[in-house]
Amino acid sequence: MRTNDDIWIREVGLRDGLQSIETIFSTDAKLEWICLEAAAGVPEIELGSFVPAKLLPQLADTKSVIAAACAEPTLRTSALVPNFRGAIDGFASGVQQLNYVLSVSEAHSQANVRKSVAEAVTDFSRICDYRKENKEYANVKLAAGLATVFGCTISGEISINSVLKTLEELLLFEPDEIVIADTVGFANPAQCREVFELVFSIVGDIPVSAHFHDTRGLGLANVGAALDAGVRRFDSSLAGLGGCPYAPGASGNIVTEDLVFMLESMGLKTGISLEGLLAARTCMTSYLHDEPTRGAFVNAGVPKGAVLASPVNRLGA
Amino acid sequence: MRTNDDIWIREVGLRDGLQSIETIFSTDAKLEWICLEAAAGVPEIELGSFVPAKLLPQLADTKSVIAAACAEPTLRTSALVPNFRGAIDGFASGVQQLNYVLSVSEAHSQANVRKSVAEAVTDFSRICDYRKENKEYANVKLAAGLATVFGCTISGEISINSVLKTLEELLLFEPDEIVIADTVGFANPAQCREVFELVFSIVGDIPVSAHFHDTRGLGLANVGAALDAGVRRFDSSLAGLGGCPYAPGASGNIVTEDLVFMLESMGLKTGISLEGLLAARTCMTSYLHDEPTRGAFVNAGVPKGAVLASPVNRLGA
Repeated sequence: MRTNDDIWIREVGLRDGLQSIETIFSTDAKLEWICLEAAAGVPEIELGSFVPAKLLPQLADTKSVIAAACAEPTLRTSALVPNFRGAIDGFASGVQQLNYVLSVSEAHSQANVRKSVAEAVTDFSRICDYRKENKEYANVKLAAGLATVFGCTISGEISINSVLKTLEELLLFEPDEIVIADTVGFANPAQCREVFELVFSIVGDIPVSAHFHDTRGLGLANVGAALDAGVRRFDSSLAGLGGCPYAPGASGNIVTEDLVFMLESMGLKTGISLEGLLAARTCMTSYLHDEPTRGAFVNAGVPKGAVLASPVNRLGA
Repeated sequence: MRTNDDIWIREVGLRDGLQSIETIFSTDAKLEWICLEAAAGVPEIELGSFVPAKLLPQLADTKSVIAAACAEPTLRTSALVPNFRGAIDGFASGVQQLNYVLSVSEAHSQANVRKSVAEAVTDFSRICDYRKENKEYANVKLAAGLATVFGCTISGEISINSVLKTLEELLLFEPDEIVIADTVGFANPAQCREVFELVFSIVGDIPVSAHFHDTRGLGLANVGAALDAGVRRFDSSLAGLGGCPYAPGASGNIVTEDLVFMLESMGLKTGISLEGLLAARTCMTSYLHDEPTRGAFVNAGVPKGAVLASPVNRLGA
């Protein structure tokens, strides 16, 4: 049984990380990375994205990666889908969860997927209907992600009312999870607390995840505020892969190993071995060509005398 | 009048930063840096340390730096003193505040100043007596800093009871400020909240500052937790100066400009111009020889549409 001290980490480096860098990983290299993170105890990995290969050649092998990764007994496999078309492919791939994402910013939604927010909500409803109509997919989980919740590089401030309105529309289709994303690294801790408290006030029992980028160095401070508001699920990326620190708007996710260290040192249970994560980091970074990586734990290690929370057994989680 | 939204930032790069790197700044270079930070609105700068010049040649000109910096009308000048001997020199220098620091770890105290914690407490009492006996120093403020509160590289875990015992002994001498320092970057947010709540329960009206290092990437997350516990005063270092990220145990303080951005974006008032801080950063880093710097705000800037807290007027603060 999961308790309020248990944290669910979703590694998104294979999707959000790889889609933001130039290095293209071979399927074998991805699987090495996946096996090591699964062995370290990471409960879920977002393995790729169902988008046209010409848009993101880095993720063109998502289907093969899923087919191989589904053999990992303790791992929940997931993949991002940006639209109905991608979801059809996703269902057929055998992945255990589809993470659908729409942007709550009209300008960002138009720029990214050439759809209004309302049209993107409709796409999610079609995906949910498709699952209902195809009984063989009844066990595939559907997450609904809201991007640019904390601000948008195109339109700036996003009103919390528009976020909650879109969230309420998505909730009508009973998603298995809600993901609240600071897509472009605009969030601050005060805002996180406010947003997640409001989100929790309307989602009922649906799990809520936080997806933070570390663009302005506030990623882990935002995690702290989200924890206070009750969030127990986080997206992160090994070595903070994704985006050059010198290119504004293109910075990586929060660093998986720093996040796990922070949570474990606070007495929260990720079920993840930090040693195992560092092994995965060593493997993953060996495939990079001049891509920036981040992270403090990799250099500093566990403080002398520190007690980390005991690992939980993920089997059957 | 200061409100609960007002934050006091002490720049410690000229002391904690410079003492940890190899580059030796000329007095003129230090003064350029100081003037720019004072112009940006930084309310206090720790200008150096009264230690023997042969131990820290980087800080050998502390007396001259103080003499020149005291001309800045809005700046509170302070300097670190590690013992009674240093405090005598400090009083004579004309600096407005002396920051005395002792380590709550017996092993660390012995290794650093060859004194037991009890002897170090006695040194602080002698410093306070000296101020009483010399009326011309009546207006010099005396801060009492506790180092290695969150853990020690030599002895590991530090019991909160030993911290509170030493704090209670120091409080008998009525310091003007208490500084709680994570000297070696061991703290986590849960621990910060616990420690600062306990500290506030016994200090009465004495201001409490937090001094964090970013060794494991948790510096700003710790600031978030300290804010929740009521802390409104923070030490930080421009560009996170001090310590190479690849040398465990030698990492820099939290980054002044990232800290100020975080606080301002949360609606808290530092009275500091971020643009002014970046100008100071550009100046300061131009004097560095191959020393690592850190910081995310310098690359990312203010998010589009973000509203920062309005600056406060520091004159007479």
